[in-house]
Amino acid sequence: MAPGRFITFEGIDGSGKSTQARLLAERLPDALLTREPGGSAGAEEIRALVLNGDPGRWSAETELLLFTAARRDHLEKTIEPALAAGRTVICDRFADSTRVYQGATRGDLRATVDKLHALTIGREPDLTFIIDMDPETALARGVARPGAERRFEDFGLALQETVRHGFLSLARQFSERCIVIDGDRPAEAVAAEIAARLELAD
Amino acid sequence: MAPGRFITFEGIDGSGKSTQARLLAERLPDALLTREPGGSAGAEEIRALVLNGDPGRWSAETELLLFTAARRDHLEKTIEPALAAGRTVICDRFADSTRVYQGATRGDLRATVDKLHALTIGREPDLTFIIDMDPETALARGVARPGAERRFEDFGLALQETVRHGFLSLARQFSERCIVIDGDRPAEAVAAEIAARLELAD
Repeated sequence: MAPGRFITFEGIDGSGKSTQARLLAERLPDALLTREPGGSAGAEEIRALVLNGDPGRWSAETELLLFTAARRDHLEKTIEPALAAGRTVICDRFADSTRVYQGATRGDLRATVDKLHALTIGREPDLTFIIDMDPETALARGVARPGAERRFEDFGLALQETVRHGFLSLARQFSERCIVIDGDRPAEAVAAEIAARLELAD
Repeated sequence: MAPGRFITFEGIDGSGKSTQARLLAERLPDALLTREPGGSAGAEEIRALVLNGDPGRWSAETELLLFTAARRDHLEKTIEPALAAGRTVICDRFADSTRVYQGATRGDLRATVDKLHALTIGREPDLTFIIDMDPETALARGVARPGAERRFEDFGLALQETVRHGFLSLARQFSERCIVIDGDRPAEAVAAEIAARLELAD
């Protein structure tokens, strides 16, 4: 059986990437929808360890190791088996988020992030949709969203601007798999563009 | 202030290394006695995540990342501050245990272990006492000890033999810092040899 496609969604908080991941999964009957950090039983436990409690209790380096451990578990237990079974895997955040959040916004760890990824993860998505959006618009959306992850959103507008540019920079670095999508439109319009890019029938 | 000395104890379970670490700490009034996995609040939480539950639920690679995250936290929060304050730090297991347990006995991860250590830990002990012992003797001691860590001890004699040779091999590789001590003697005799090696007054 041909392996399935591994599609990731990236973008700043409030960009609508989670909605787009879900809308795409609804169009593809065989798709597995998952997300990071988390996505497997073990990875969810690691996620809870990182995200609960005092946000300052882990250094950037320790947090990077924990998120990488969670990704390794997610990859082994959830992503790889589904791909091997020929299913499309749609993942809300993956290694690009680590490159941007841990690599660029917490210390200057990008070189460490890249080496750690090569050493313990290796896998890149086949296709990445970067949902791009004006940070002021995204921040307003993100803060309003119930259950939004406080940790990544409390840093404010300056961080969102840094993160946005981090994702746009990654889109240039990994241009063979990254597609930047203008997210500042109604969700249906964004979803229609994504479907068109994937050459899905209406 | 001159930084303190970082002294580690390694050996197979039941070798008496924890007893020796404690006895040395009792002789050195300024010493900080700590242990791995664990040794800081965060590292203890990661330790619990790894050691509780089904022993097969983490792959060797994920376990390695989790133990490395715990070590990084332990190093930052406990070991480095004490060394910087001029204290002797005595640690029951450190990176050599990972080299042997994760590097040699769970898959063939030694190259990954070494790269991960160089990337995220870096620090080596100033001095390492490897408490060497016949595995049959050690296994009998280890199993009898109340509260002994089941996980490392349930693998049995063949593993203990592999681990023993792993530590002896490390002692040759890191001969500038490793001292092999015959542990198959009364604890007081072993402690006296360790004190002599450190040139401690009686």
